[in-house]
Amino acid sequence: MSDNPLIIFTPSGRRGNVPKGTTVLDAARQLGVDLDSVCGGRGICSRCQITPGVGEFPKHGLTVREDALSEWNAVEERYDQKRGLPKGRRLGCQAQVLEDIVVDVPPESQVHKQVVRKAADARVVRMDPATRLYYVEVEEPDMHDPSGDAERVRAALSNDWGVNDAVIPLPVLSRLQTTLRKGQWALTVAVFQDAETSQPTIIDMWPGLLEDSLLGLAIDLGSTTIAAHLCDLSTGEVIGSAGVMNPQIRFGEDLMSRVSYAMMNPGGDAEMTKAVREALATLAQDLSNDANIDPRRIVEMTVVCNPVMHHLLIGIDPVELGQAPFALATSEALRLTVRDLDITTVNSEARVYILPCIAGHVGADAAAVALSEAPFNSEDRVLIVDVGTNAEILLGDGERVLACSSPTGPAFEGAQISSGQRAAPGAIERIEIDPITKNPRYRVIGSELWSDDPEFALATAASGITGICGSGIIEAIAEMRMAGLIDASGLIGGPDQTGTERSIPDGRTFAYVIHDGREDGGPLITVTQGDIRAIQLAKSALYAGARLLMDEMETDTVDRVVLAGAFGAHISPKHAMVLGMIPDCEIDRVTSAGNAAGTGARIALCDRTERGRIEADVRRITKIETAIEPRFQEHFVAANAIPHATDPFPHLPELPAASFNAGGGEGRTRRRRRG
Amino acid sequence: MSDNPLIIFTPSGRRGNVPKGTTVLDAARQLGVDLDSVCGGRGICSRCQITPGVGEFPKHGLTVREDALSEWNAVEERYDQKRGLPKGRRLGCQAQVLEDIVVDVPPESQVHKQVVRKAADARVVRMDPATRLYYVEVEEPDMHDPSGDAERVRAALSNDWGVNDAVIPLPVLSRLQTTLRKGQWALTVAVFQDAETSQPTIIDMWPGLLEDSLLGLAIDLGSTTIAAHLCDLSTGEVIGSAGVMNPQIRFGEDLMSRVSYAMMNPGGDAEMTKAVREALATLAQDLSNDANIDPRRIVEMTVVCNPVMHHLLIGIDPVELGQAPFALATSEALRLTVRDLDITTVNSEARVYILPCIAGHVGADAAAVALSEAPFNSEDRVLIVDVGTNAEILLGDGERVLACSSPTGPAFEGAQISSGQRAAPGAIERIEIDPITKNPRYRVIGSELWSDDPEFALATAASGITGICGSGIIEAIAEMRMAGLIDASGLIGGPDQTGTERSIPDGRTFAYVIHDGREDGGPLITVTQGDIRAIQLAKSALYAGARLLMDEMETDTVDRVVLAGAFGAHISPKHAMVLGMIPDCEIDRVTSAGNAAGTGARIALCDRTERGRIEADVRRITKIETAIEPRFQEHFVAANAIPHATDPFPHLPELPAASFNAGGGEGRTRRRRRG
Repeated sequence: MSDNPLIIFTPSGRRGNVPKGTTVLDAARQLGVDLDSVCGGRGICSRCQITPGVGEFPKHGLTVREDALSEWNAVEERYDQKRGLPKGRRLGCQAQVLEDIVVDVPPESQVHKQVVRKAADARVVRMDPATRLYYVEVEEPDMHDPSGDAERVRAALSNDWGVNDAVIPLPVLSRLQTTLRKGQWALTVAVFQDAETSQPTIIDMWPGLLEDSLLGLAIDLGSTTIAAHLCDLSTGEVIGSAGVMNPQIRFGEDLMSRVSYAMMNPGGDAEMTKAVREALATLAQDLSNDANIDPRRIVEMTVVCNPVMHHLLIGIDPVELGQAPFALATSEALRLTVRDLDITTVNSEARVYILPCIAGHVGADAAAVALSEAPFNSEDRVLIVDVGTNAEILLGDGERVLACSSPTGPAFEGAQISSGQRAAPGAIERIEIDPITKNPRYRVIGSELWSDDPEFALATAASGITGICGSGIIEAIAEMRMAGLIDASGLIGGPDQTGTERSIPDGRTFAYVIHDGREDGGPLITVTQGDIRAIQLAKSALYAGARLLMDEMETDTVDRVVLAGAFGAHISPKHAMVLGMIPDCEIDRVTSAGNAAGTGARIALCDRTERGRIEADVRRITKIETAIEPRFQEHFVAANAIPHATDPFPHLPELPAASFNAGGGEGRTRRRRRG
Repeated sequence: MSDNPLIIFTPSGRRGNVPKGTTVLDAARQLGVDLDSVCGGRGICSRCQITPGVGEFPKHGLTVREDALSEWNAVEERYDQKRGLPKGRRLGCQAQVLEDIVVDVPPESQVHKQVVRKAADARVVRMDPATRLYYVEVEEPDMHDPSGDAERVRAALSNDWGVNDAVIPLPVLSRLQTTLRKGQWALTVAVFQDAETSQPTIIDMWPGLLEDSLLGLAIDLGSTTIAAHLCDLSTGEVIGSAGVMNPQIRFGEDLMSRVSYAMMNPGGDAEMTKAVREALATLAQDLSNDANIDPRRIVEMTVVCNPVMHHLLIGIDPVELGQAPFALATSEALRLTVRDLDITTVNSEARVYILPCIAGHVGADAAAVALSEAPFNSEDRVLIVDVGTNAEILLGDGERVLACSSPTGPAFEGAQISSGQRAAPGAIERIEIDPITKNPRYRVIGSELWSDDPEFALATAASGITGICGSGIIEAIAEMRMAGLIDASGLIGGPDQTGTERSIPDGRTFAYVIHDGREDGGPLITVTQGDIRAIQLAKSALYAGARLLMDEMETDTVDRVVLAGAFGAHISPKHAMVLGMIPDCEIDRVTSAGNAAGTGARIALCDRTERGRIEADVRRITKIETAIEPRFQEHFVAANAIPHATDPFPHLPELPAASFNAGGGEGRTRRRRRG
């Protein structure tokens, strides 16, 4: 029996001797072990649950006796009867260390628990939210030593939790006296402090102990859609997700048309600001309703978006973003409150963090992708592409990160494509073309069946076959190239050249018929020469942007490619590479990061230290402005062709070197004229 | 001729050698001389004007040549032609030091100029406002090195002025891009930073150079009246003052009736909050209109008030202040914006500073008196009394300061006095009673004439003689005592005892007739026994509070007494002492500080360093709660008598030791029963 028994914590492995009688919670604090507590060791919050080990621990050379901890006490008994303690668990604030012991801290008792993301190669997110709950018991007022109730709350926070000089905003202050008295001088305060060194702010308070956890919203504000995830700020769990169309669409389909709307209509920017703020408020309300939670628990919000959305959200006329030199009003991260954004459907003091913008064309969404995909930490040379109306492109090798934006236009989203449509049921999303018969088979969104399946017609009866979405058009053109239906310049061959009646005349050029539903009153779905030109323009812009960054890094190759964004999640790497959208690399090293921008928003929501990190990273990123780099035009023109299929696709038939067009380079010549 | 000529600045006396060709402004900065500049040495603001000395300076052992400074240059010429430079003046940013020289910095060129207050013994106020103007020229945006316009403004502020990491609130940010372009990349920003170490905030911006100075409002928010002073934040000059009745009066005459209103009426506190905020907004607007200034120039506001007014202003239900233990919601100084207070008639980002409260009964108004009268710096033992519905009392000796509040009630303001009225034209404010004839003569507000002047009737015809105000009733009772009309217990003698028919029966006691206007349809103005009892209660409370503090300081005497407040400004020290309102001290050491609370508000407005100082001082003040000190009751009872006139009034007739009342101590006995 020692006066200073040894305590070993697992899984951290931290160990040390503590005076006999020390509580496990105090021992954890002394040894820097991450053991949660909201009530500060009063035995009421149960966040400090631990599992004592008993028996042999050969690894530690220890035999732990049954009575190494003090006996189960009245506080634990009361808690167990009231709310139940899992078998084998003790309250760390009650159990005292009497002899050498091994104590396990289960994940749910850790403050900085790690949240494992779904994707296998994704890095782990550590929980360190900017807003935390603290339970305090406050001294009652004393006429002999008069001080304000607020000052005594501050003193308790400082003494019990080391949270010093907390600011109390007026609306919170106005509820303080009644809350304190209702809680009989005990209350739970939500303290926002988004960096160790920043001044803490009490953004809400509840009488007594608040049992619920705080929540936050991670918002990916796109030009077309707005997605929001409701996250538990204690566990990191996503407890609800929702998306709506961006209501600004009624002012303009794409970014530049919205900027034009603001330029042409006095007060137009304010209209768009109001629309998007209302959409965010409604989204928050819907998520609260669906999850059946008190909206007051939503105390934080992080937002990622492109620069135009960014300015319109915060109420700045985006006119400067529509013309050179594309000056942002502000590029740094913004720390706001929901009041600043007129959002009233969450806690009225909720804080908003908007990630920094990288440049006038490379927004907080690109910063969020960088936060999620961490190119500054990459061990190889990674090209990250977030494809949308604009493509944001990042190239990093662990030392340097370069960024640019490339004006791909909306073709990748199915817009400006003759049979194009948004990704919705009925849209063709996958296509294969038989290189011998030149006949296609395809799948539409809403069914897993291919079109040559006997059940296909039945399965798609409800939606019909309505058009081609963005990923479908990519596959269609790549498959047409692989099936010898188009040449390297992108020209569609006529039936004489392709040997199929699916090549049909379309004005002075040809089109390829994928589906003819006209007999049943449906559409004729074709890929036209114009469609191919539109995709060529888009993919050339994307490729040229990537090449520009590679030039800047003085390299001709990348080790891997990450496709981010919803479109990136659906695109087929093989077809993207056939089309020449992205530089060559081993095909199994082309991965999809899903909604990396949204993930970045979630990371910033869950871990405040990542905010400072991405702000520092963004300052380190080398920004390339494609609009003023002459080499961008060169790369753009050079990237127009749809390259010869060589490795890594040895199964592809060798295509005729000659063009379908007698004049050889006619396709390119026309491109030039139109460009 | 030296390569490093000597420059001597007057009046500071700072001196040093600087490289030949250094501008006077740069030399001043290097030597720590207080020389103003808004434009940062660009020759456009003219704030750095100096007067070069020429000739013999025996004190410095120097002969200064005519060409000790560089020649008058084109920038000075342009400025002189455009706006005019006073004869003999140079622009410090243009004139270069070529040889040894003496340079005088006139007061208006000093940033931290000293403002001399009117009262002879008042300390000097140093200008160091929390909000200052800075002129910056900002780099234009560059696509090769993209950064936000805000970041470049911040960089210019940092590089040119050492103002780092300025925050730009969203409403200011939304105007930034247009302002910058309108000013062709030059702008004047107003930066709020109320302590050296606090983060600066850009609260407004104007294109180019703003010629006007910034303004602030010092507000003394009383229960009855609200006074505001509009001050120039550069010179400290008061450019306008205005006062209005506190509209909360319709909810209750005194503080406790307003607290009751809040307790009895749900939402009553919010009604009163709205009323007082609207009054402040209107007051600000009226001051702007009268001074014909752009309200946007009003960028700061300081407020002093008692705790109930304090809580109602910031939107906190004052219910806790109406009952023991009189817990303030918050006692520390508050830093708010006008938006927090719904005040829209000044700059929308204007900052509000509310001084700290000392205790539940001793408010920010008492703190402001302490700021103005500086008892912590007093070389002798000073008693400071701010008389109102409550009297705030401070006792300080340079080392310790004690404070309490004493519930004097409204008698001193003329309320609860039979012929009492507010201080307004027609109210008797001064009285003398002839000790032989027992007849009074008096003056009323609105005329300088005494009532025995032949012109008096004509001069007061407009107002009439309507009642007695607070200072009048003090004088009346003290004079009655000195004329032998009342005894030491306060009992009014009947005509048999006093020998005058002006002693008239009034129920079971007597009253003394000061004025009988009934023949002309005017009032009968008397001092009744009830009036004397009311004043005795009030003055006993005041005296007991002062004694309590003296006990705590273990002293029986004070060296001087300062009477603060509007009432204090009108009260006659002699009569106050006869009445026993204040402890004895030499009569010429009883002074009036005028509206010391309002002065404190002005000091806090003009000099940000005083904010930190008063906050620290308030924490050091020893607070005494009269309600729980048993000795307060003892002192209160003992102070009931109207003391025998002795020194320092040897001219007073010795009054009969016996009481007018047969029973001797009956007056006191009755007091006890009623207490």
